[in-house]
Amino acid sequence: MNADEFRRHGHALSDWIADYQATLETRPVLAQVAPGTIRAALPRSAPREGESFEAMMADVERIILPGITHWQSPNFFAFFPANTSGASILGELLSAGLGVQGMLWATSPACTELESHVLDWLVEMLGLPQAFASEGAGGGVIQDTASSAVLCALIAARERAQAGAGAGAGAAPGPLVAYASNQAHSSVEKAIHIAGVGRGQLHLIEVDENFALRPEALAARVAADRAAGMRPFFVAATVGTTSSNAMDPVGAMAGICATAGAPLWLHVDAAMSGTAALCPEFRPLFAGVESADSFNFNPHKWMFTNFDCSCFWVRDRKALTSALSILPEYLRNQATSSGAVIDYRDWQIPLGRRFRALKLWFVIRSFGVEGLRREVRKHVGWGQEFAGWVAADPRFELAAPAPLNLVCFRHRGGEDANQAIMDRLNQSGDLYLTHTKLDGKLTLRMSIGAARTEHRHVERAWRRIQEEAAHWEKRKGQARHAD
Amino acid sequence: MNADEFRRHGHALSDWIADYQATLETRPVLAQVAPGTIRAALPRSAPREGESFEAMMADVERIILPGITHWQSPNFFAFFPANTSGASILGELLSAGLGVQGMLWATSPACTELESHVLDWLVEMLGLPQAFASEGAGGGVIQDTASSAVLCALIAARERAQAGAGAGAGAAPGPLVAYASNQAHSSVEKAIHIAGVGRGQLHLIEVDENFALRPEALAARVAADRAAGMRPFFVAATVGTTSSNAMDPVGAMAGICATAGAPLWLHVDAAMSGTAALCPEFRPLFAGVESADSFNFNPHKWMFTNFDCSCFWVRDRKALTSALSILPEYLRNQATSSGAVIDYRDWQIPLGRRFRALKLWFVIRSFGVEGLRREVRKHVGWGQEFAGWVAADPRFELAAPAPLNLVCFRHRGGEDANQAIMDRLNQSGDLYLTHTKLDGKLTLRMSIGAARTEHRHVERAWRRIQEEAAHWEKRKGQARHAD
Repeated sequence: MNADEFRRHGHALSDWIADYQATLETRPVLAQVAPGTIRAALPRSAPREGESFEAMMADVERIILPGITHWQSPNFFAFFPANTSGASILGELLSAGLGVQGMLWATSPACTELESHVLDWLVEMLGLPQAFASEGAGGGVIQDTASSAVLCALIAARERAQAGAGAGAGAAPGPLVAYASNQAHSSVEKAIHIAGVGRGQLHLIEVDENFALRPEALAARVAADRAAGMRPFFVAATVGTTSSNAMDPVGAMAGICATAGAPLWLHVDAAMSGTAALCPEFRPLFAGVESADSFNFNPHKWMFTNFDCSCFWVRDRKALTSALSILPEYLRNQATSSGAVIDYRDWQIPLGRRFRALKLWFVIRSFGVEGLRREVRKHVGWGQEFAGWVAADPRFELAAPAPLNLVCFRHRGGEDANQAIMDRLNQSGDLYLTHTKLDGKLTLRMSIGAARTEHRHVERAWRRIQEEAAHWEKRKGQARHAD
Repeated sequence: MNADEFRRHGHALSDWIADYQATLETRPVLAQVAPGTIRAALPRSAPREGESFEAMMADVERIILPGITHWQSPNFFAFFPANTSGASILGELLSAGLGVQGMLWATSPACTELESHVLDWLVEMLGLPQAFASEGAGGGVIQDTASSAVLCALIAARERAQAGAGAGAGAAPGPLVAYASNQAHSSVEKAIHIAGVGRGQLHLIEVDENFALRPEALAARVAADRAAGMRPFFVAATVGTTSSNAMDPVGAMAGICATAGAPLWLHVDAAMSGTAALCPEFRPLFAGVESADSFNFNPHKWMFTNFDCSCFWVRDRKALTSALSILPEYLRNQATSSGAVIDYRDWQIPLGRRFRALKLWFVIRSFGVEGLRREVRKHVGWGQEFAGWVAADPRFELAAPAPLNLVCFRHRGGEDANQAIMDRLNQSGDLYLTHTKLDGKLTLRMSIGAARTEHRHVERAWRRIQEEAAHWEKRKGQARHAD
């Protein structure tokens, strides 16, 4: 593909994306294909000689699009938002066009410095503690996901705990133990497992009626474990759990981490809800974060930046880099030796990295801080409105508090009713929502935050939910009548 | 940014990228900025209100470009290629435009199925063992990097080894031990460390005069470790080391892994050189891969696909998924429960994933298999030609065999000469090359594989190297004269 062809295809593809996005509203949200459908339409072997871009795009239309679940649909209310924006898409395009690899400062200084800088901007934008800014001992880095962020935090904590033990005298230290609520994301368990600490060494702490960690239960478990010769070293708090958007009491947890003889590393996972901290009125949900050792949120969830872009800060960057740095000869260079630069390869699991800060910079500049706040307030407002509709309908109940843009609710008809309502909604293509279990009960989740969602889409979703509830009630009545 | 603005900016940015690439040849390859330069040019805080795309692109030109090390320059001969292509850039753009997240089959069936399919194509294209294809018990997945691939392999091996021990009776098993040559990539040590096995549990095996692992040394060490009560479980072989492109004897290593009482997991890292397997004439370098448990190569290095795209295959996908799978309620769905689909979240460290198969599919279709082979043969041919020039110049020597596109060489004047030659070349901006140490001696690396490199760039690089050698010799002569 020569330069002129690239121009031509780049124009056409930009138009294609604009057209695709304009049609999103009319497409069934959840892909309606059976397993194997896509593969069956693809040739068994790769082509021997090159094909035209037009042929490839024709296959995108014919083969790929029917197999797409449209995360950017205004009717996508499943899982969590993964909203994107024109600015982000163009930032990703620019990153691909430059084609740099930022493993070291020297391999593209702008890739590293823009990242440090924009993450410092975000410290201010989110009201995060100044200790996370790169001017002092802390700093931020873009990870691919919150899973990788918690793994990095856990490894830094593991090394800090083991170095402390190694330096001290006395008996061999007991096994490491980590803590999170029983509502924490599965990535905490996965990280404990990957890091070789052992799945059984993650102690899940009970939650209160709002699905938030009970700090007195955490304190008791830490004390008991310590008395039993174990070594508590890591706590993961969640500000906005995936399941129900529960808010762990970060301040109380920080107190437990700090007052212990050997401090526990406190990681705060705010993967989706971190974006809410843009708005001062939501910052009370984050109270206590000023005492955390690390913090993470995902602009690729609710801040209009396409996957992958997960922002991770640490209070003590040396704890992170000393846990993850290995410097072979072929990566040595003057800038690294000078100690004057950040080499982000030491802040993450992989060695290589692409220029992800560009899209984040583009998004922040394109919206502006106030523009982003307006979007967050809009989504939270609709979430609150939706929760009100649920509360006002006697057939339904709220299953958990809805502090922001996620509403957990259920039909009072039990598991059968909720499964039927969800399945029919998703199969209709009109919207897509997913479920969780709270108190052992099947619960529907209405997650509001797609970039193209408007108020009318939320209204229609509620209308469709009510229709499917009526359908189920009618069938149920018929079945009872037939008995 | 509305749809019309997106079209307009998408057109402009496509043109900008084409223009940028056309000017690559004239730009200094290695960024010439001092630490802090980029940050000093950026405003201290994020803008309150949105800015125009034109303003952002003006800052890209003014602030970012001077801080770019141009990996796509035809004069980039450093580290390893990270070559890209128009098809790949457009594939990345399309992926960003669709904005899907492929953690589960259900969250976009096409994202999963295209990936499985293209990785099966590559099994055939590279002449890999059929056991790696998804039709049987194996299968392939796109990771971000070779670092993550070796970590996944290591965790699967760790779990397999520990499950075996847990099932067996008798004494407590000894500590796990892994093996790689002392030339293996630092990611092996990083993986051992991350996985909690312990850096000291990686035993580095001596190499022969070609910097390839000595299989008899591996066999002896495995036997000695076993006799000492340790538990050998993992071997990383490298087909094309980062430092010097050394080729470990995979077949002999496979024999050692297989004949031991408990089999060792054999992982083959061919991050850069794997692309050479496209050409049947280079496949003897990979002999023995048919016995490997896992294999990895990076299309984002030498196959025209922009970072990140690292292909990873396993012989036994259950060993991988049982090591990495955790299924919380909120991810349960009918397709997953049916067992009829692949959920790639179970094949990797993170949970989320973007649609990376699109760009790989575009690249393969755009070049065709024969087109890719022509590129590989071209680069290898130039590598061989360059090695011939070095061998013919009495001032220089080859420092290692050059089986493919990487030539390790040095001036006979010692460390001072080679450091001076490299520094002046890189500071000139005319080309960029990096170094390693072989036999304790500073060695220059000429890595040929940028997409825009032509024969004349390789010729000019050699001419510039000779000029800088002459410059050093002249200065050296003057200094001697002055004594």
